[in-house]
Amino acid sequence: MIRYLTAGESHGQALVGIVEGIPAGVPLTAAYIDHQLWRRQQGYGRGGRMRIESDTVEILSGVRFGRTLGSPVALMVRNRDWQNWTEKMAVEGNGKGIEKITLPRPGHADYVGALKYGFDDIRNVIDRASARETAMRVACASVVRRLLEEIGITIGSHVTSIGKVTLADRRAVDTLIRKCSPDMTDIADAADASEVRMLERAAEAKAINIIKSCKKKGDTLGGTFEVLVGGVPAGLGSYVQYDRKLDGQLAAAVMSIHAVKGVEIGDGFANSGRYGSEVHDELLAKRGVVTRPTNRAGGMEGGVTNGELLVIRGAMKPIATLAHPLRTVDIRSKKTARSRYERSDVCAVPACSVIAEAAVAPVIANAFLEKYGGDSLREVSARFKRR
Amino acid sequence: MIRYLTAGESHGQALVGIVEGIPAGVPLTAAYIDHQLWRRQQGYGRGGRMRIESDTVEILSGVRFGRTLGSPVALMVRNRDWQNWTEKMAVEGNGKGIEKITLPRPGHADYVGALKYGFDDIRNVIDRASARETAMRVACASVVRRLLEEIGITIGSHVTSIGKVTLADRRAVDTLIRKCSPDMTDIADAADASEVRMLERAAEAKAINIIKSCKKKGDTLGGTFEVLVGGVPAGLGSYVQYDRKLDGQLAAAVMSIHAVKGVEIGDGFANSGRYGSEVHDELLAKRGVVTRPTNRAGGMEGGVTNGELLVIRGAMKPIATLAHPLRTVDIRSKKTARSRYERSDVCAVPACSVIAEAAVAPVIANAFLEKYGGDSLREVSARFKRR
Amino acid sequence: MIRYLTAGESHGQALVGIVEGIPAGVPLTAAYIDHQLWRRQQGYGRGGRMRIESDTVEILSGVRFGRTLGSPVALMVRNRDWQNWTEKMAVEGNGKGIEKITLPRPGHADYVGALKYGFDDIRNVIDRASARETAMRVACASVVRRLLEEIGITIGSHVTSIGKVTLADRRAVDTLIRKCSPDMTDIADAADASEVRMLERAAEAKAINIIKSCKKKGDTLGGTFEVLVGGVPAGLGSYVQYDRKLDGQLAAAVMSIHAVKGVEIGDGFANSGRYGSEVHDELLAKRGVVTRPTNRAGGMEGGVTNGELLVIRGAMKPIATLAHPLRTVDIRSKKTARSRYERSDVCAVPACSVIAEAAVAPVIANAFLEKYGGDSLREVSARFKRR
Amino acid sequence: MIRYLTAGESHGQALVGIVEGIPAGVPLTAAYIDHQLWRRQQGYGRGGRMRIESDTVEILSGVRFGRTLGSPVALMVRNRDWQNWTEKMAVEGNGKGIEKITLPRPGHADYVGALKYGFDDIRNVIDRASARETAMRVACASVVRRLLEEIGITIGSHVTSIGKVTLADRRAVDTLIRKCSPDMTDIADAADASEVRMLERAAEAKAINIIKSCKKKGDTLGGTFEVLVGGVPAGLGSYVQYDRKLDGQLAAAVMSIHAVKGVEIGDGFANSGRYGSEVHDELLAKRGVVTRPTNRAGGMEGGVTNGELLVIRGAMKPIATLAHPLRTVDIRSKKTARSRYERSDVCAVPACSVIAEAAVAPVIANAFLEKYGGDSLREVSARFKRR
Repeated sequence: MIRYLTAGESHGQALVGIVEGIPAGVPLTAAYIDHQLWRRQQGYGRGGRMRIESDTVEILSGVRFGRTLGSPVALMVRNRDWQNWTEKMAVEGNGKGIEKITLPRPGHADYVGALKYGFDDIRNVIDRASARETAMRVACASVVRRLLEEIGITIGSHVTSIGKVTLADRRAVDTLIRKCSPDMTDIADAADASEVRMLERAAEAKAINIIKSCKKKGDTLGGTFEVLVGGVPAGLGSYVQYDRKLDGQLAAAVMSIHAVKGVEIGDGFANSGRYGSEVHDELLAKRGVVTRPTNRAGGMEGGVTNGELLVIRGAMKPIATLAHPLRTVDIRSKKTARSRYERSDVCAVPACSVIAEAAVAPVIANAFLEKYGGDSLREVSARFKRR
Repeated sequence: MIRYLTAGESHGQALVGIVEGIPAGVPLTAAYIDHQLWRRQQGYGRGGRMRIESDTVEILSGVRFGRTLGSPVALMVRNRDWQNWTEKMAVEGNGKGIEKITLPRPGHADYVGALKYGFDDIRNVIDRASARETAMRVACASVVRRLLEEIGITIGSHVTSIGKVTLADRRAVDTLIRKCSPDMTDIADAADASEVRMLERAAEAKAINIIKSCKKKGDTLGGTFEVLVGGVPAGLGSYVQYDRKLDGQLAAAVMSIHAVKGVEIGDGFANSGRYGSEVHDELLAKRGVVTRPTNRAGGMEGGVTNGELLVIRGAMKPIATLAHPLRTVDIRSKKTARSRYERSDVCAVPACSVIAEAAVAPVIANAFLEKYGGDSLREVSARFKRR
Repeated sequence: MIRYLTAGESHGQALVGIVEGIPAGVPLTAAYIDHQLWRRQQGYGRGGRMRIESDTVEILSGVRFGRTLGSPVALMVRNRDWQNWTEKMAVEGNGKGIEKITLPRPGHADYVGALKYGFDDIRNVIDRASARETAMRVACASVVRRLLEEIGITIGSHVTSIGKVTLADRRAVDTLIRKCSPDMTDIADAADASEVRMLERAAEAKAINIIKSCKKKGDTLGGTFEVLVGGVPAGLGSYVQYDRKLDGQLAAAVMSIHAVKGVEIGDGFANSGRYGSEVHDELLAKRGVVTRPTNRAGGMEGGVTNGELLVIRGAMKPIATLAHPLRTVDIRSKKTARSRYERSDVCAVPACSVIAEAAVAPVIANAFLEKYGGDSLREVSARFKRR
Repeated sequence: MIRYLTAGESHGQALVGIVEGIPAGVPLTAAYIDHQLWRRQQGYGRGGRMRIESDTVEILSGVRFGRTLGSPVALMVRNRDWQNWTEKMAVEGNGKGIEKITLPRPGHADYVGALKYGFDDIRNVIDRASARETAMRVACASVVRRLLEEIGITIGSHVTSIGKVTLADRRAVDTLIRKCSPDMTDIADAADASEVRMLERAAEAKAINIIKSCKKKGDTLGGTFEVLVGGVPAGLGSYVQYDRKLDGQLAAAVMSIHAVKGVEIGDGFANSGRYGSEVHDELLAKRGVVTRPTNRAGGMEGGVTNGELLVIRGAMKPIATLAHPLRTVDIRSKKTARSRYERSDVCAVPACSVIAEAAVAPVIANAFLEKYGGDSLREVSARFKRR
C-alpha cells in the first residue's frame, strides 16, 4: 500500500514529503516531478506568489540511478522566499517583536485553526492551511503517477467552468476525450496548453475575461474541473465493505483539496435528475468483447472500476482571500473588523485541476496494487500483462 | 477510534455488524436501533422487499443493563425470508441444480463483481453488493448516533429533489432548519413524517406523482438529499494533513453509499459559480460572541468544523434495477441480451437520506473523540461540558 | 488486506467475528473451523469451563456452497451456558439485584479495566477481558488458515515448557520438525495427540504431574510454546519502514494473546548471548539452489521472510485466577481483601499455543497478499505457482 | 494519532522524517533532538562509522519560535560522508561503472531484499536495511518524547547483558530504579554515563573486556536491554480488541528495531517458569491508595497499563557484519563464497537500548492521546492534571 505524508509551512524553509510503498524499479527523475510542479503553477489569474515559487524538487532518498528502490522516496521543495521569512517563521527564538495576525479571513481555516490549536497568532494556521501544501502533494503523487504510466494508466484533467463561464459545447469536448481515450496524456497536454486549462477556445476566452474583470473588482472566482483516468482495468475497488468502495476513496481524495467543496463521479448530480433508463450504461457484445456505448457512470459501478474511462469532477469555491476584504472578528479584541489582505490569486481552478490529478493517483495505484500485488515494477507489469 | 465492519448477504441468514471503540456507559436499546432501521425502510416508492424486511436488531454483545461496556457491540439483523433461500444461499453443499444468474444489470456491480472475483454466477455479487447492506450500516451507526446524542450532537436529513422535482421554496425550508438549529432531531422527525422525506408539501405531492408515473413506465428515479448535523463544536478535523480533513472523510462516507455519485458540503457546486464576495461567510462579533449571518460553507472551513450547522449533500442516481430491462451481455454466452428483473424499488432517495445520516455519524464521532478523548460517556461528557 | 474484529462477552449470548478481505473461492466449512475450536479447547489442566463450552461455529455470511464469496465472513459461536446468565448479563434492564464484583484479581485486567471505563462492577471487565475471546479469534483465523493451506502454507505449534518442565532433548524435537518441514500439519497433529501439546514423551509426563500437583496447591502454571509456519516464500514483509517489518507484526499478534508476556523469533533471547559467528545462518549453493544448514534466525532476516521455516515463540505467564486467592483491594470499600475465585484452569499453555497459531495466520496472509495480490483463490494460486 | 514515516539511505544525501499528529505548543529545539541522536551514537564497541556520523538534525517544518504548530514536523539529518558517495548513490544517471555488491551477508536483509525487489546489486538493499535508519527513528521519536516529558512521562533504558556478561546483582539495579521511580530521566542519564549503558560497574568492566576480545577475533556480540517508562497513568491501551492491547503494540515497536529478535514485558520469559502465586502482583490499600509491593507484570495487565513502572525488554542478536566473514552465495554466480566485510560495529546493544526508548515513545503517546485527546499541549495538560 502506498502511503504519503506531506509537511512544510508556506513561508517556512521547505516543503517535505515522504512516499512509502512504491515498488522498486520505477523510472523517476527530478525533472519529471518538476514538470508536474510546473503544471500546478500555471493558469491565468494567479497572483505574484506563483512567479516567486517556480518550484523544483530535490529527491533525497528512495531513488538510485534513476529508478526507485522500493524504499521510501523523500522529496524536498525549498521555498524560494525563505530568506525573507527567516525571522517571522524562525524555528527557534521567542518570536518577540514579530507582529501577530489576529484577523481571520472568512472561508479560510484561520479562525477555526486558531481556536482548535489555541493560537493567538493566525500566522501559525495560515502557513500550513495554505494551498502551498499542494505543491508537495503534487510532488508525492508524481512518483505514483510515474508508476501508473509504466502500467499504462494515464491521468489528465481540464477545467469545465470558471465562475459562470461554462463549456458552450460539452459534446465536442467529450468527442475529443473519446478520441484520445484511453490515453489521457493528450488531454493533460491539451489542457496544459490553455491558460485556464479549458479544452474549448470560446469558453477559454470568456473565462480569461471574467478573471480580468473580477480582479479589477477585487473579487475572486471558483469553478469546476474534471479528472480523467484512462487505462484503468475493470475490477479495482470493492463493493464488499463500505470503506473499500473506490468512489468513496476518490471522493475523499478530491474533497480534501483546498477549496474543493463538491465531488461527483461521472454525471453524478445531473444523473440524479434523470430516469434510470437514461442513466445506466448498457453492455453490448461486439465479437465476444463487452462494450458500452455510454459512460454516464464515469467508469465506476458499485464502487468498482468497470474498465471505462474514470471521470471524477470537483467544484472549487472562489478563493477566500479577497483584495476587497470581508468583515471578520479580531481574535484578540473580539471586535468586528475588516479581514486583512494577503497577496493572492483571483482564480486557481486550473491549478486545482492539476492537484486533483495528483490526489487521485495514489487511490488508483493502491486499488491496483491490492489486486495485482508486487514489489517491483517488473513483477507488477509482467503480472498485469499476463492477466 | 470507532471502527465498524458489516457482513451479510441480502438473502443470507442474517446481516451482522461489529462496532468497536464506543466509550462505556452509553445508553442503548434494541428499540432505539430498530427505530433507525424503521426510518430506513420508509419512503414512497419502495417495492415489496421492504415490507418483507421489517428489520429488528439483536444486540449480541457489548451492552449490559442498557449501557455500552466499552467492548465491541455485535449486532445481528436476521433476514426474514431466509427460509425461502436456504437452498439457493446455502453455506455448504455444492449448489448443484441451483440456477446461475448470468445477466448483469447495467449500473450495478454485477458485471465488474463477477469479473473481479471470478464468478460464473452473479448471485454471488448481487447478494453483497445489494443496498440491503445498508441496513446493518444504519444499525452500526445507531450505536454511534446514541453516543452523539448524549453529547448534544444531533443528525437529521431531508430529501431535496426526486427526479426533476425540486423544492419550490428552498428558503422556507432553510428558515425551518434555522429555527430548529442546532437540534436536528426535529428535522429528522419532520422528514420522517413525509413519505418522501421532503420538508415542503408542494414538492412532496409532485414527487409522489412522479414516482407513481415512473413506476407505470417501469423506470426508476434518483434524487438529492441533505444531511444536517447540529451541535458540532468548532475545531473537529484538521487542515494539517490531507487525510485528516473532515470534509474529505465525510465525502468518502456519503459517496460509499450505494448509488450515491455526488457529494457536496454546503452550496458546493453552486458556490463554484459565484464570486468570492458572495460565498464566504463573514464573522461578526455580537457581545463578545462570534456569529455568522450566513452558512454557505456548510459548517466547514479548511476541512475543520466551524461551529455552524454541518450541511452535507448527496446525489443518488436512479435505481439500477428497471422493470423495463436494459441491454446487457450474458457472462456465459457472451451475447447481448436483456438484463433480468429482480423485484426492486422505483425510488429509494428517502432511504438513502437516512443511510447518509448513518454514514456521517462515525466520522463526526471520531473527529470528536480525537479532540476530546475518553473511555466512558461520563469522562467524555464532563470534559466536553467543561471546555 | 485481511481485517478482522471479534466481539462477545464470556457469559453473553454469543461470540461474533467478522473477517474481511478473504479472496473469493476459498473452500470453507463449519466443520473445519470447529476442528480448530476443538484444538483450542484441549489440554490437560483445563477447568470445568472447557467442558461446558464445546464450541461450534455458525457461518452467517460470506460463504456459499462451501466457498468464500470475497464478502465478509461473519461467524458466531453461541455460549452454551448463556441460559444461566440471561439475568446477570442481560442486554437490557437495570441490573437491580444483580451482585456486583468488586474484588479485582491481580494479574488480570480487572482493576485497570474498571478504572479505565469507570465501572463499579468488575463483571463488565471480566467478561470481555476473558480468554474466552480467543475462541472467536481462532474461528476468524481459521478462515485465513484455510486460505493459507490452499497456497501451501501450513501452521503448527507445540509446547516447549510448562512451569519448570522443559524439553529434555530439544534436538530430537528439532529433528522431527525438520523431517516434517515444510508441512507443519504433522506437527500440529502430533501436538494435538498430546494432552499438553508436547512433542516429547518424557516432558509430557512430567508436565502432567506438575499440573496435577499444582492444582492440589491451588496454584497455576504458565509455560512457553513455539509456532511453526512452513511453506512461507522468501520476501514477505519489508525492511523499508519500521511498521512493515514482519517480525514486529508477528510479535504484536502473539503478544496480544491473553497472558502472553514474551515473544521471540527463532532463538531470540538465547542468540543474544552468543557470538555472531555462532548465530547467523550461512548460505550455501547446492546445484544452483541456495540452502541454509541452520535456521537460528527463525526464518526471518531484516523483518523479511527468508524462505526457511518460520519460528515464533511465546512465553505465557501462569493463569491469574488462583484457587488460593491473592491479596487485592476492594474497589468499593478501598480496603485490602482476598481476591475472589472464579472456576478456572490450572494451565492453559496448550490452548495458548493453538491460539498463537491463529494469531499469526492473518499476519502471514496479509504479507502474502501484499506481494501476490488477487481477489480470488484461483487468481492468487495461479500467480503464486507461476512465480 | 501520531504517525511517522522515515526515509533515507545509509549513504544517501540525508535521512528524512515526518511526524504527524503532535499537539501544538510542545517546546522543541534541534538541540534537544541532537542530544537524543548523540545518545544513540554512544557505546563502547562502535566502529568508525559512528565517528563520521555525529548527527545533527534540521527542523524543516512544524515548529515556530520553539513550539510545535500542530502541523507535521519534518526533520532532516544530512549524511556527513555523502560527498564520498555522490557517484555510488547518485539519484540520477545510469550507474555504469559502479561496482555491484553480489555477496549477501548472512543475518542481514541482503539476500531476501535483493530477491524481493528484484535487484542485481545488494547495495540497493544495504542502504535502506541498515540500522542507520534508526537515527531518523530516534529523531522522530524525540519530538514525541518531548511531548511526553511535558506530561510527566519519562523514558529511560539500560543494558542488562552483553554476550554472556549479565548483571551480577540485578536486585541492586532494581533498587536504584525504584529509587528514581517514576522519573526515569535519572536512569537514562546514569546509563548514558556508562560506555555500555550498564548500571553496574562490575558488569560494565566485564562487558568492555568481552567486546575488546571479541573485536580481536573478528566476531560480534549481542545482548539484552530494558526500557523503563515512568509516570504512565493506569488505563492506557485496552483489552477489548486484540489490536488495541498495548503490550502487543509495544512488542511490535521494539521487535521492529534492527537485530532485535525477542521482546518481553516485565519478567516475561522468567515468569512463564514460575507459579501463579509467585508471579501476580498483589494490590494493597494504603490509606485509601492502591499500592503494589511488586511489579513483575512490568506495569501492564490485560494489555492495559496499571500505573506501575512500564518495563519492556529486548534481545538483540549479534551484529551480522563480521570482520571474519561467513559463507554465503554470490547472487550473480550462484556459487558459495565468503561474505564481504563492511566496516561495522562489534556491539551495538547500548545504541539499541536508546533506539528502543524511541520506539516505545509513540506507542505510549498514542495510547495517552486516545484517552485524553486534545490539540494543544495546554489542552492536554490541563485535562490530564484535572483527572
